[in-house]
Amino acid sequence: MPRIFFQQQLAELKDKLLAMAAMAQQALDLSVEAYLACDTGLAAHVLDIEKAINAAERSVDEMAYDLLATEQPMAVDLRFILSVIKINSDLERVGDQSANIAERVECTNQGAVKDLPVDIRGMGEQVGVMIRSAIQALLEADAKQAEQVLAMDDEIDERNRSIQAQLLEWMQQRPETSDQALNAILVSRNLERAADHATNIAEDVIFWVRGSDVRHKLHLIEAD
Amino acid sequence: MPRIFFQQQLAELKDKLLAMAAMAQQALDLSVEAYLACDTGLAAHVLDIEKAINAAERSVDEMAYDLLATEQPMAVDLRFILSVIKINSDLERVGDQSANIAERVECTNQGAVKDLPVDIRGMGEQVGVMIRSAIQALLEADAKQAEQVLAMDDEIDERNRSIQAQLLEWMQQRPETSDQALNAILVSRNLERAADHATNIAEDVIFWVRGSDVRHKLHLIEAD
Repeated sequence: MPRIFFQQQLAELKDKLLAMAAMAQQALDLSVEAYLACDTGLAAHVLDIEKAINAAERSVDEMAYDLLATEQPMAVDLRFILSVIKINSDLERVGDQSANIAERVECTNQGAVKDLPVDIRGMGEQVGVMIRSAIQALLEADAKQAEQVLAMDDEIDERNRSIQAQLLEWMQQRPETSDQALNAILVSRNLERAADHATNIAEDVIFWVRGSDVRHKLHLIEAD
Repeated sequence: MPRIFFQQQLAELKDKLLAMAAMAQQALDLSVEAYLACDTGLAAHVLDIEKAINAAERSVDEMAYDLLATEQPMAVDLRFILSVIKINSDLERVGDQSANIAERVECTNQGAVKDLPVDIRGMGEQVGVMIRSAIQALLEADAKQAEQVLAMDDEIDERNRSIQAQLLEWMQQRPETSDQALNAILVSRNLERAADHATNIAEDVIFWVRGSDVRHKLHLIEAD
């Protein structure tokens, strides 16, 4: 394959990954929206998007594997394709987190969610910023921006811990709200997991741009 | 590099991955043990193992990348190396789940864990079987055994849902035990996540052996 055609293929692979990223971000935003508004129709839409994400993941992987098999890329191109494979997997898992949140939309106790003393919306928005920044860093091959994503992950971990502690107290005082409180704890945990995936993506961008493995160096990731 | 040396390198890569798998299994087993026995010393040991797993992950990845860069492997060898990269990442995440369980070992209310009406030990053992079967399938290039792992994942999902429902009822009736019950819910969820990683590994084994991508076909994984 001529070199110029290979570069076109790499650009196409990047575009496919960006489309995947857009879907994952949308799924996450809408899942939080559906959860907060108790909107089962929107939740069903999130599950549809997640199916589309799964199909897109396969397509990106297949293209990446074909390029590895037929082009035997070297150095920076090899690192780019390996990063795409990993980022692709993390984006798919953001879709899974979104689906988990969407599956938790239950409308038996209308109004209860917004009475809880925690800011799930704010946490969701912050995780959205992390995912967008990680993708932006990929687009611009910007390792510095990727490092900022790593720093944000600590805040999200802290936010998750704090939500968990507050809701535990809440449910001890109001056992009749335990189901809503537990739901919110699990949604917070899904968001914290999505933030871990944004962190993984940022690390892969740094690996690609700088050619060094930052995992477990800059930042000890305690993904779960 | 002569062909025979390349095959030796592949065998060495497999051995490194198996050492990684042994550590991940040990971390998971011991984390459940530490949680049930409320053994903070054992929990600290799990965190040490997890650090060793993180170092081993880097070493496996570096070897896999070097082989891709220097050998330009084709067909079955390429698929094997790509599978190793993915399985490596899943094993590291089993280590993360184990660390999460270990961090949840708190001994403020001695005896409370074993009073809960759920079988965390049994669930942990079942997840251990899944991880061992997935690795066995890798060792023997046995796609049929890998498929059995996929089937087991549904049971674990069901077990997790059931534990969650039982403990929710429990905490509504006994709000003073909410912290232990919530802890057990989160441990159950960590185990369910570890089972998802076993499922991912089994899928990668099938991909390697059969050369086909089974993800989202045989089994819709709702990892989170």
